[in-house]
Amino acid sequence: MKIINSTPRADGFHMPAEFAPHYGCIMIFPERADSWQYGGYAARRAFVEVAAAISESEKVTVCASEKQYENARRLLPERVRVVEMSSNDAWARDYAPTFVTDGKTLRGINWGFNAWGGLVDGLYFPWDLDDKMARKLCDLYEIDMYDLCNFILEGGSIHVDGEGTCITTEACLLSKGRNPNLTKEEIENYLREFLNVEKIIWLKNGIFGDETNEHVDNICAFVKPAEVVLAWTEDRADPQYELSRACLETLENTTDARGRRIKVHKMLCPKPVTITAEECAGLDTMNFAPTRTAGERLAASYVNFYIANNAVVMPIFNDPNDDLAVDLLTKLFPTRKIFPVYARDILIGGGNIHCITQQIPLAKNE
Amino acid sequence: MKIINSTPRADGFHMPAEFAPHYGCIMIFPERADSWQYGGYAARRAFVEVAAAISESEKVTVCASEKQYENARRLLPERVRVVEMSSNDAWARDYAPTFVTDGKTLRGINWGFNAWGGLVDGLYFPWDLDDKMARKLCDLYEIDMYDLCNFILEGGSIHVDGEGTCITTEACLLSKGRNPNLTKEEIENYLREFLNVEKIIWLKNGIFGDETNEHVDNICAFVKPAEVVLAWTEDRADPQYELSRACLETLENTTDARGRRIKVHKMLCPKPVTITAEECAGLDTMNFAPTRTAGERLAASYVNFYIANNAVVMPIFNDPNDDLAVDLLTKLFPTRKIFPVYARDILIGGGNIHCITQQIPLAKNE
Repeated sequence: MKIINSTPRADGFHMPAEFAPHYGCIMIFPERADSWQYGGYAARRAFVEVAAAISESEKVTVCASEKQYENARRLLPERVRVVEMSSNDAWARDYAPTFVTDGKTLRGINWGFNAWGGLVDGLYFPWDLDDKMARKLCDLYEIDMYDLCNFILEGGSIHVDGEGTCITTEACLLSKGRNPNLTKEEIENYLREFLNVEKIIWLKNGIFGDETNEHVDNICAFVKPAEVVLAWTEDRADPQYELSRACLETLENTTDARGRRIKVHKMLCPKPVTITAEECAGLDTMNFAPTRTAGERLAASYVNFYIANNAVVMPIFNDPNDDLAVDLLTKLFPTRKIFPVYARDILIGGGNIHCITQQIPLAKNE
Repeated sequence: MKIINSTPRADGFHMPAEFAPHYGCIMIFPERADSWQYGGYAARRAFVEVAAAISESEKVTVCASEKQYENARRLLPERVRVVEMSSNDAWARDYAPTFVTDGKTLRGINWGFNAWGGLVDGLYFPWDLDDKMARKLCDLYEIDMYDLCNFILEGGSIHVDGEGTCITTEACLLSKGRNPNLTKEEIENYLREFLNVEKIIWLKNGIFGDETNEHVDNICAFVKPAEVVLAWTEDRADPQYELSRACLETLENTTDARGRRIKVHKMLCPKPVTITAEECAGLDTMNFAPTRTAGERLAASYVNFYIANNAVVMPIFNDPNDDLAVDLLTKLFPTRKIFPVYARDILIGGGNIHCITQQIPLAKNE
């Protein structure tokens, strides 16, 4: 594996949109008992369902620790590849490489990772194994790598349309726990150079209570160029209302890199999802404290879906709005099969289906 | 990864000779401080030299533990792939899969592994991580696998000519620590079915003091069909003399699967190699005892070489016979570059270059 010292922009590489053709997908098998109930048993069922759905139309590799390797191999379909790889947790979106291509070759970007805020407001300690994964994955796939380990960024904090536009949130990218010494303009420059985009659309916030400092991938996602879904609520008493409304205003008053206005599809959230006392009792403690408390609101959103080659794998919550969300994605992705996965046990870990997946774009020569 | 319940013979698959074209080679990064001096530092230098030489003409993947991953990545050439994989030690020959092909597709065999004798006379405990590697490697390479986990066999205990003949040693395959409930005929049948060979040539012994129960790969190797090198000494006072002489007698009085007589090239061993007190002091203890004692004779032999696509990587010992061995292999492999590697620090671990490598044959459709 070679480390490349230039930038994707300089080399004619860019990050394709998630809806562009994939070579495959990377996931990580969940294990830590302070993130996932019952020693990970609950989450693993849901992860396996997600991997099975995605692997119907692209090659899925699941990284598992030595301890979980046998479980992963037994529970996952034969067509899914399991490789041993150590991690601190299971958020492939946030620490697998971001892949870029020039239409012929694939390369990876290794962003720095500090558990969503490091010693300022990070979610666990240590995070060294997560941080090493992008490098190991580039090596595994035998692709060269841009090493940006000193710039903190998670894959879930950016969405691109593959045509020059990136959407992100100020709440996350300007947080004190990531790159406090960089100005907004300097951060923009990193995105321009490494994603190879022209225009960055800054939403103020994400989903209320989202402990990633409000990643964009939980509130807003491209479904095609110049067209997004936006997590929404009509309940003005819900703190989410103001956050979503502000996003809508930003989106309605901007254009993308090609000068197009952006069509926004409102995607109603489920009713607030809160964790039960029984669920909390199924979680190990961290730093001598419970990681969650009964009644705590979880950052539930249907926007946290994964677009596979022939499918969209989306979270549902056993909520009346599930059907609306399924219908909306069915309409927006007419060529893809919609796979709803009951995702409460992923949500309890702090994210959802998009957060636990990372697509590998198809480079044309493969 | 699919488990196949038939046998290679039934499916038209066989194990090719090592001198047939390779897709690549698997190695494991050495780490355990009771096998390798100075926490593995000494051995790693030699392993890196071996990997560098092999990777000049085939794709090399080195498996490294999480702890050694960074060292491996830094020390090995960029063209070598490093993947994280846990092991108990570093003997790829003995627990990586044995690969078979039908000329189009590659499959792996997962033999059982019990550290060269299990609780009878095995060399360390536990050996579970080693034993899992063949399965993980088949998964990694996305090939299907014959699972023979209840039949104990190490890759270093067999050599094949790719044309129906296997050479092995009675000292190893009939040892009490491996398959004590199987008769010699039953063991032969496993070899016939899984390597897809017709004729098994049983040498009585291997190299004097070889703690693998005298693997064939340290005493005798095919250089082409019906032609072998045999480790030799002219010193009648050396206990090796009788062992090598008996092998010669066996080889001279048999024919291979195709009825050919076997041409034997005697390969003079180096003078007995013994471990020094200083070297012993560089090894951690195991079970509260030193793993080696000063003056202990090591099983040094030039036969423990690896045949790569365009090279033969061979051990040398700073011995007057080094040149003879290099000259012999130069003559026997006229199309390959001979890479002598000073291998004392590998030998101290208990094996040599062949023991730390496992070739992956080229399946024609790749």
